[in-house]
Amino acid sequence: MTSGLPSPSSSSGSPGAPGPRGQHAFQAPTGTRDFYPADLSRLRFIQDAWRRTAVAHGFEEIDGPTFEHLEVYTAKSGEGIVSELFSFQRAGGEKTLALRPEFTPTLARMYAARANALPRPTKWFWMQNCFRAERPQRGRLREFTQWNCDVIGDDSPQADAEVIACAVGMFEGLGLTPEHVRIRVNDRNVMRAILEEIGIPEPLHGAVADLLDRRAKLSPEEFAWTAGKVGVTRDHISAIDELIGNVQGQGWHRIFSEMFPVDGERHSVGQRFFQLAEGLDAAGLSRWWTFDPAIVRGLAYYTGMVFEVHEASGAERAIAGGGRYDGLIELFGGPPTPAVGFGMGDVVLSLVLQDKGLMPSDDEVADRLGLRPDAVVVSAGATPEDQAAAAAAVAPTLAALRRAGLHARRSYKATKNVGKLIQDAAKQRARFCVILEGATTATLKDLSTQGQQTVPVAELAARLARPPR
Amino acid sequence: MTSGLPSPSSSSGSPGAPGPRGQHAFQAPTGTRDFYPADLSRLRFIQDAWRRTAVAHGFEEIDGPTFEHLEVYTAKSGEGIVSELFSFQRAGGEKTLALRPEFTPTLARMYAARANALPRPTKWFWMQNCFRAERPQRGRLREFTQWNCDVIGDDSPQADAEVIACAVGMFEGLGLTPEHVRIRVNDRNVMRAILEEIGIPEPLHGAVADLLDRRAKLSPEEFAWTAGKVGVTRDHISAIDELIGNVQGQGWHRIFSEMFPVDGERHSVGQRFFQLAEGLDAAGLSRWWTFDPAIVRGLAYYTGMVFEVHEASGAERAIAGGGRYDGLIELFGGPPTPAVGFGMGDVVLSLVLQDKGLMPSDDEVADRLGLRPDAVVVSAGATPEDQAAAAAAVAPTLAALRRAGLHARRSYKATKNVGKLIQDAAKQRARFCVILEGATTATLKDLSTQGQQTVPVAELAARLARPPR
Repeated sequence: MTSGLPSPSSSSGSPGAPGPRGQHAFQAPTGTRDFYPADLSRLRFIQDAWRRTAVAHGFEEIDGPTFEHLEVYTAKSGEGIVSELFSFQRAGGEKTLALRPEFTPTLARMYAARANALPRPTKWFWMQNCFRAERPQRGRLREFTQWNCDVIGDDSPQADAEVIACAVGMFEGLGLTPEHVRIRVNDRNVMRAILEEIGIPEPLHGAVADLLDRRAKLSPEEFAWTAGKVGVTRDHISAIDELIGNVQGQGWHRIFSEMFPVDGERHSVGQRFFQLAEGLDAAGLSRWWTFDPAIVRGLAYYTGMVFEVHEASGAERAIAGGGRYDGLIELFGGPPTPAVGFGMGDVVLSLVLQDKGLMPSDDEVADRLGLRPDAVVVSAGATPEDQAAAAAAVAPTLAALRRAGLHARRSYKATKNVGKLIQDAAKQRARFCVILEGATTATLKDLSTQGQQTVPVAELAARLARPPR
Repeated sequence: MTSGLPSPSSSSGSPGAPGPRGQHAFQAPTGTRDFYPADLSRLRFIQDAWRRTAVAHGFEEIDGPTFEHLEVYTAKSGEGIVSELFSFQRAGGEKTLALRPEFTPTLARMYAARANALPRPTKWFWMQNCFRAERPQRGRLREFTQWNCDVIGDDSPQADAEVIACAVGMFEGLGLTPEHVRIRVNDRNVMRAILEEIGIPEPLHGAVADLLDRRAKLSPEEFAWTAGKVGVTRDHISAIDELIGNVQGQGWHRIFSEMFPVDGERHSVGQRFFQLAEGLDAAGLSRWWTFDPAIVRGLAYYTGMVFEVHEASGAERAIAGGGRYDGLIELFGGPPTPAVGFGMGDVVLSLVLQDKGLMPSDDEVADRLGLRPDAVVVSAGATPEDQAAAAAAVAPTLAALRRAGLHARRSYKATKNVGKLIQDAAKQRARFCVILEGATTATLKDLSTQGQQTVPVAELAARLARPPR
């Protein structure tokens, strides 16, 4: 049995050949997943960690439609997003709709609609599925689950630190450590100041940011050639390289102190990054994060701090990413409102958990989700009369146990061999096997201790009640 | 504050007029809902009841793609379903996809794909969203949440009773009683035998079933006229009326005994219904259900028992419905496999819960979902030095509490008035207010008893640990 999430379908998109009986064998659409019980339990295990972490950090859950008017997505991301969307239209002049590729535009629409009535800050989380009409690749499917946490209406560096701390809280809860994953933090305003300092003209900042973003994927020659093509000089590259070398580890402290002096006009830019660093350190995250000038993310969208979480060795795509986006709520018709948040998907996270051996076994997952049966009810009896009475007592016993909130199953085996029935109950990992011996008496067998005792049927629910936890 | 689920958007499908700043005010698509925190908590409250009930009854959760190839839906429901679907196509020759209007076709596809490896019976539940491209009406939206429970691979009347018992278990858990909702049960084979007995020719059975289904909505004249049009005679109507009168309450016992005598060729049809009734009674459902020959449901699809759950006075649409569908798995390329199940949506259920006053208050819902904060952390201090130390201790204290699994919030108020900060913590319904007085000492105030004590900061997490429940 695999310990990961299910592999996506790679069907070409057409139903399979006729089956043995002439019917068609249908397949899941390309890039989507079928979650059988053990698969879904692993996803629920991740979602459970997401939800617990978000609640512990004071976020409240919201949700919105699975599709929005197409304009909601182009308003944030431009027309370029359209080719990545599953979009559709109803007859009768209705506007084009699109499956959400992300939740943030819906969040901005919802916040803008009630901005005046909402608390400041508003802390919302969301976890549902998103859709991308791209070709599926490792770590990237057409349907996936995402977790978002956003602090809206607070522009402090403490709020920036807070969302990063929430992401880390989730990693800690799943057993990940700073040896497994790295938080790479940058700031759009710091970056602008650095590029100005180096002497790179403003119109080139976008191209340089894009170059830095792609650097790890390019050979030195490719990097140099691409830089030349967009008009970045060799002197600029040297300066950038020197900078990257100098800010390694804690090196940014010295660089920033020099670059953003107390009496300089850009002092507040550097000061804000120092405050963010203090906030991260105060939350106990010193070992988790580094300053990384190569973290860029959506240029048109983020306005301050940006961060990404990567597997430490650099394997896999980003596990999570986010930052400050102070312009979005206004774009959706709300008042000017600062906001900061992040998103994390299930696909890369579960690959990393598997790789690190941190995805628990199916049994452990079931236990943590509270899916272990309390009892399997079977019937026996010393005489044919007792057997009939016991068989008739199965349904009422099940009903009584379930009414008491217990997870109770019956046996569907045709056998009357009680040993086999008990084995079957143990295979289902039930805590107890209830062997009805007649209308009023049962043997209650504890499947962990193998101890057993005779119990009146009327007392079973009380005897099976789970110990407080 | 409303106590129901949020109203759907009834926007005409276009973004609103430009807002005060020239931006567009976007609206949710027609027939979809925005769930702000209190709205979503009410939905989660219902879903929590669904999940607990399904697990207690031994069902395991599965999930599949939000969209399938269009053929998956037409295979079950015919081409007529197409106009009710949101469908879309990607460039490059990919097949048309459609948002799921229901989950059963996906369940059949998934079961068929692994039929030989799955246990018999397989008991699956599912709870996610579905989509219908119809005009939204009361109780019917374009996006809604649905709960399905299915027993696959068991053809016994006990399995039929089991799925009905599971639905009732959920109602009981939410406080609904037989005075609030009624389970109306019919059987496709019983119906066929009755219509034959009355002398209605086989080709008219579909039209008669359809007539019975619509009877409650038609005047006697409309009913007679429609019957005449499809070829049902006045004698047939009299016979049907007599039958309906005779089967009221427990009347069906006598009718079925006469109609399905022990030595008759259709004895097994009647016997099966008696066994179903025994199964329902054994599960304690006698007061919940009645035989109702007017329950029809999908004629081409159901093959045995069918049932619907209605609000007792007949208000609202069906809350839930289901039945036996022994042909579906084979249609999806699997082996011949009996199956029985039901579906229940969130929209009508929440209308009924509201109407009966059974939707708990927002505070109660939050408590049941475990959303109440354990602590709000604020800072004070007798001297400026203590104040600074206390302020610096907020982030580490929050991190320590959250790492211990506690739901901890900080104050975002600018005020240093401790009384106001404590009031604000109480307004958030926190169990405790933690007032940091310096780097190492805090006042822990119990907001229910108003009692307070001085506690070392290092001991806060242990002192705040929730009592076992």
